[in-house]
Amino acid sequence: MRIGVLTGGGDSPGINACLRAIVRRAHEAGAEVIGFQDGWKGLVEDLTMPLGLKEVSGILPQGGTILGTSRTNPFNKVKKNGETIWEPTDKVRKVLDTCARHRIDCLIAIGGDDTLGVAAHLIPHGLRAVGIPQTIDNDLWGTDYSIGFPTALSIVTEALDRLHTTSHAHHRAMIVEVMGRDAGWIAVLGGMAGGADVILIPERPFSVKDVVARLKKRLELGKRFSIIVVAEGARPVELGGKQVTQQEVDAFGHVQLGGIGYWLAARLREHKDELELTPRVTVLAYLQRGGIATAFDRLLATRLGVRAVELALEGNSGVMVGMQGERVVPVPLEEVAANSPRLVPDELIELAEIFY
Amino acid sequence: MRIGVLTGGGDSPGINACLRAIVRRAHEAGAEVIGFQDGWKGLVEDLTMPLGLKEVSGILPQGGTILGTSRTNPFNKVKKNGETIWEPTDKVRKVLDTCARHRIDCLIAIGGDDTLGVAAHLIPHGLRAVGIPQTIDNDLWGTDYSIGFPTALSIVTEALDRLHTTSHAHHRAMIVEVMGRDAGWIAVLGGMAGGADVILIPERPFSVKDVVARLKKRLELGKRFSIIVVAEGARPVELGGKQVTQQEVDAFGHVQLGGIGYWLAARLREHKDELELTPRVTVLAYLQRGGIATAFDRLLATRLGVRAVELALEGNSGVMVGMQGERVVPVPLEEVAANSPRLVPDELIELAEIFY
Amino acid sequence: MRIGVLTGGGDSPGINACLRAIVRRAHEAGAEVIGFQDGWKGLVEDLTMPLGLKEVSGILPQGGTILGTSRTNPFNKVKKNGETIWEPTDKVRKVLDTCARHRIDCLIAIGGDDTLGVAAHLIPHGLRAVGIPQTIDNDLWGTDYSIGFPTALSIVTEALDRLHTTSHAHHRAMIVEVMGRDAGWIAVLGGMAGGADVILIPERPFSVKDVVARLKKRLELGKRFSIIVVAEGARPVELGGKQVTQQEVDAFGHVQLGGIGYWLAARLREHKDELELTPRVTVLAYLQRGGIATAFDRLLATRLGVRAVELALEGNSGVMVGMQGERVVPVPLEEVAANSPRLVPDELIELAEIFY
Amino acid sequence: MRIGVLTGGGDSPGINACLRAIVRRAHEAGAEVIGFQDGWKGLVEDLTMPLGLKEVSGILPQGGTILGTSRTNPFNKVKKNGETIWEPTDKVRKVLDTCARHRIDCLIAIGGDDTLGVAAHLIPHGLRAVGIPQTIDNDLWGTDYSIGFPTALSIVTEALDRLHTTSHAHHRAMIVEVMGRDAGWIAVLGGMAGGADVILIPERPFSVKDVVARLKKRLELGKRFSIIVVAEGARPVELGGKQVTQQEVDAFGHVQLGGIGYWLAARLREHKDELELTPRVTVLAYLQRGGIATAFDRLLATRLGVRAVELALEGNSGVMVGMQGERVVPVPLEEVAANSPRLVPDELIELAEIFY
Repeated sequence: MRIGVLTGGGDSPGINACLRAIVRRAHEAGAEVIGFQDGWKGLVEDLTMPLGLKEVSGILPQGGTILGTSRTNPFNKVKKNGETIWEPTDKVRKVLDTCARHRIDCLIAIGGDDTLGVAAHLIPHGLRAVGIPQTIDNDLWGTDYSIGFPTALSIVTEALDRLHTTSHAHHRAMIVEVMGRDAGWIAVLGGMAGGADVILIPERPFSVKDVVARLKKRLELGKRFSIIVVAEGARPVELGGKQVTQQEVDAFGHVQLGGIGYWLAARLREHKDELELTPRVTVLAYLQRGGIATAFDRLLATRLGVRAVELALEGNSGVMVGMQGERVVPVPLEEVAANSPRLVPDELIELAEIFY
Repeated sequence: MRIGVLTGGGDSPGINACLRAIVRRAHEAGAEVIGFQDGWKGLVEDLTMPLGLKEVSGILPQGGTILGTSRTNPFNKVKKNGETIWEPTDKVRKVLDTCARHRIDCLIAIGGDDTLGVAAHLIPHGLRAVGIPQTIDNDLWGTDYSIGFPTALSIVTEALDRLHTTSHAHHRAMIVEVMGRDAGWIAVLGGMAGGADVILIPERPFSVKDVVARLKKRLELGKRFSIIVVAEGARPVELGGKQVTQQEVDAFGHVQLGGIGYWLAARLREHKDELELTPRVTVLAYLQRGGIATAFDRLLATRLGVRAVELALEGNSGVMVGMQGERVVPVPLEEVAANSPRLVPDELIELAEIFY
Repeated sequence: MRIGVLTGGGDSPGINACLRAIVRRAHEAGAEVIGFQDGWKGLVEDLTMPLGLKEVSGILPQGGTILGTSRTNPFNKVKKNGETIWEPTDKVRKVLDTCARHRIDCLIAIGGDDTLGVAAHLIPHGLRAVGIPQTIDNDLWGTDYSIGFPTALSIVTEALDRLHTTSHAHHRAMIVEVMGRDAGWIAVLGGMAGGADVILIPERPFSVKDVVARLKKRLELGKRFSIIVVAEGARPVELGGKQVTQQEVDAFGHVQLGGIGYWLAARLREHKDELELTPRVTVLAYLQRGGIATAFDRLLATRLGVRAVELALEGNSGVMVGMQGERVVPVPLEEVAANSPRLVPDELIELAEIFY
Repeated sequence: MRIGVLTGGGDSPGINACLRAIVRRAHEAGAEVIGFQDGWKGLVEDLTMPLGLKEVSGILPQGGTILGTSRTNPFNKVKKNGETIWEPTDKVRKVLDTCARHRIDCLIAIGGDDTLGVAAHLIPHGLRAVGIPQTIDNDLWGTDYSIGFPTALSIVTEALDRLHTTSHAHHRAMIVEVMGRDAGWIAVLGGMAGGADVILIPERPFSVKDVVARLKKRLELGKRFSIIVVAEGARPVELGGKQVTQQEVDAFGHVQLGGIGYWLAARLREHKDELELTPRVTVLAYLQRGGIATAFDRLLATRLGVRAVELALEGNSGVMVGMQGERVVPVPLEEVAANSPRLVPDELIELAEIFY
């Protein structure tokens, strides 16, 4: 049995723990593991590295991925009638050739919707693959948690803790822009864990008017500071309930490179006197992808990695391993692709609102 | 509606987050919350403190419990024919009187098997109560996770990370004694997340001979250090497969105050030449109970606290809120008492063994 | 003996540790301590709070300041012929009256150049005061370290550690904007501790051309990522070697609310093809002021606080306590005002350059 | 120019940062660096590894030492009339031969009194060497700080923070045993930063009676918990003011493997009723040597490493680089050896006592 492994898309802590688990479990079963470098690019260009016990020794806590990653996609994604069509390019053949050349019985792909989507679309072309969910956005369907999310959550929570201590001393609205383009998992769970006063997410378009009203209500209660967590994909109704794109933002004469956080700060500044506080922006950006993986992330990654190998050993293909409650279950890759992004459910959003 | 709250047994990070959630949810529903101090002692002696929005402001991340705790039990636990009988004392009446005096509609008890056991045994006497699981040992039946465990897990993992860096430089066996009297949750999950080489838990009596054999095997593979995680309740077959009690240990002429970690170190020292390494002991002890609650612990505590209030508002009694997968469900307190301690399942133990 | 205390300007971790030290040392000497709230505003408006053993219990590690802070200044700062004149307003009288009303023998002012500058300018009006340096910018003359800087340094270092793990996986230039309006202490020491590849500070105007050249050189060495630390006050020669103000930046059609980090990203983006990497911006902003004080910050704050009380008890006034090597020494407030901001010395800048 | 490097004795975070600095500075000057493995053993047995830019890439934050370490000493230390004589063995010749074989112009030795002592004693035999202070005990004469101490300090402080949160909930005396065989630096500074209530160090023999009296006084003030930090080398007057050795401790029928922490717990337990609290022991042990180096440790290590190379390049030998205030200065190795261990000065001990 020969297993190939690749890591694609944005990286995050926990991937290395997953690679270690894959190698250890495969080794136990006498299977060989070949690492492909830089995501799907490694399969297109045949970039490999050995992946044995020695390579994965000591990488358990480390962020990043020893395999490297890229956003290479052997398909062209074309929008047609509102639908996205994956048109194969000549790279598809190269991927399959590389697999054949290395006699790969099963390819384990670690990544988010794009990386796993490639795997799903290569299955009909003859690829045998198992997916492992990894995205700090946590928006893959079929799994409660994706690798990287637990650590991102903990980083956001720690950042909010820090802002709490300093915000008490001043009249301020601290705006914290976090990741989450299509779904607000980091914002909702991080905001709830970090005691945010307002949470703005893609699932629910917000109005600046409502934010101002909330801040004023807090002011009346004697709270002279507020922490606002805003997901990068949050959509102001003032912009038609759409995400802030650079073009739209430019039209307002504002930031070209910053995101929704700066846009919101500019809006709140217009209400400065009324609110008696100054908005301040912190953009966590890539900090959310970095550092030491938390214990939960390592356990998640370890369990998913071990189970992916077992599924491969049992001859499975076309499935992603998903963490559902305390069980690791196989989920058809097609279903994952069809139902992602997974949005934050209403009950969780309402839970967070108790603490506004 | 008037809700009473108490926190009993050993404390842990997350309790304060839970108290905050209870108060915020109750406030939203217009219910009043009264805090009883120092666990069941507060109900026996009528020690109360107000528990309003002000009291819970800013406590979300903090370890400990603002209510204080104790191990007071209004019952005498008597062993009869191998069974434990809870004989009521005159304190039972005092608890009920205190509840009546404060017109408590429902009492929320936060704690482990002892604290929740008292609630379960008071129900037949007329108490109305809802339980919330809190024990870093994580061994309560009916919930995947108990408040305090996520933080303890993260502390143990961090400790193992630290030992890894220094153990590489020397020929050493690092023995880390962690909590877990009846079940090895912290040891198994913490050990797995921290990359332990040997994990010893109450569920599976161990022999020193096997530990020595494993260390020797690692030595043959060129690994000149090893990290051994041992739960305080681990049971050596050399002592008849029972836990190390002070008496038994004294008989061996060893530690009077230290625990199994020191006992094991003494045994390994006898094989020093053979193993070519020196054992070193770290006892994490109360460090595992302290500090800032992790994001997961806060979310767990928040969800359990909110749901406990909702169950109380709906007129429920005699149940514990349990986290099962992503759902919070009511579990009869009797069942919790009857089935605890919840042991680490075989499949998880075997998962950990892949990484030995 | 009655000692007044105030904390002014931007807050930072370590202030509370300092307040605790002041109260404990004063208590030992039988002196009384009165806290003034919200910086100099508390003296203008007579806002006091008790500051006894109970108030400072448990605040040692906490960020923020239990006294609150503000930027109120009883003087008008007027620029005349390039010099800044401090013109007294009627608030000066109010401050002196408040001190008299509370029979303050000595006022301890904790803060940066503005807060301590007020103290210095009030001395000729009859105020008796001792200053304690507190600014995360670390640019006060007369002390090696100011309260808040050690923690800010550690936060920046940790952020760079996180970016390192993720930057390895992609072709990226990570731009991290840190505090430091007049001096680059956080950027130089944080950058050195965190392994930055380029450090841009107010002391040395930089050119985008040089930054691009450095990144290209790294690319030639096979380094496909780079971390650039830029102090908020760094001055591009492209803008005449001046700091990026909003007006100037607007003239370039760029960010209105973001700072130099975004400006630089826009510039580097113009060289995207040449550099083969995408710039990404992280703005640490108020994160640098928050959270738990580091051990060094607490020790610094404790030593400065104790010594300030001792100087007050000995009848001193008009001095700031400065940490010079391992000694705490009194420095005339006038000298501090005259020589601040203290810039990063050349030898330290050159030390950092070894690691570019 | 060819520079050899070795790391000896107990390892600690910061060493790798120092190795990186040495290599980077040497590279800049065109000098070559050869790494000797496992301390002086590597010079006796000629164990080398290349030490170039590639080897030190990415090791800045990492604990441990990539060179490995040992306690090998080419001298026999013999006690004669209370003095310690270093008698050369045939290993001395081997060390010199190895240096000659590799044409080492200067050997940089990183370590504590033993490692640097070897260097000092080899100088008269013809070795050319520069020392760098590294010991978490921080007791080397000639430097304010040694590599490893800043990180150990931060770990101890964090541990005390954790115990504070949990100790509030119970009636407990938390005993924390920290490193410090001859001097109490970690105990005094860590205890002060972490808010310890009692600190016991080698410099000042303590009596159990005094500790009990202090705890009782706290009890009278309503403090129902206390944190006692005890250095491993603290000496109870009850044992004649000497350190607790295993023999002496055995004579008391107590711990064979545990240290002074357990001994003290046993003594306090005898006063249990009087003190109304239960003693609990945490032994930090090797945790103090592990993990990520703090920012201060990295800066210290970087500055010392760079300066050591510069001294070597300038043709110096027989000196250690010491951090004195903000300056790095050369100190004759002989003086270091003659005046170490450096004890905690009285004024610092008395400063700590203000907070008892």
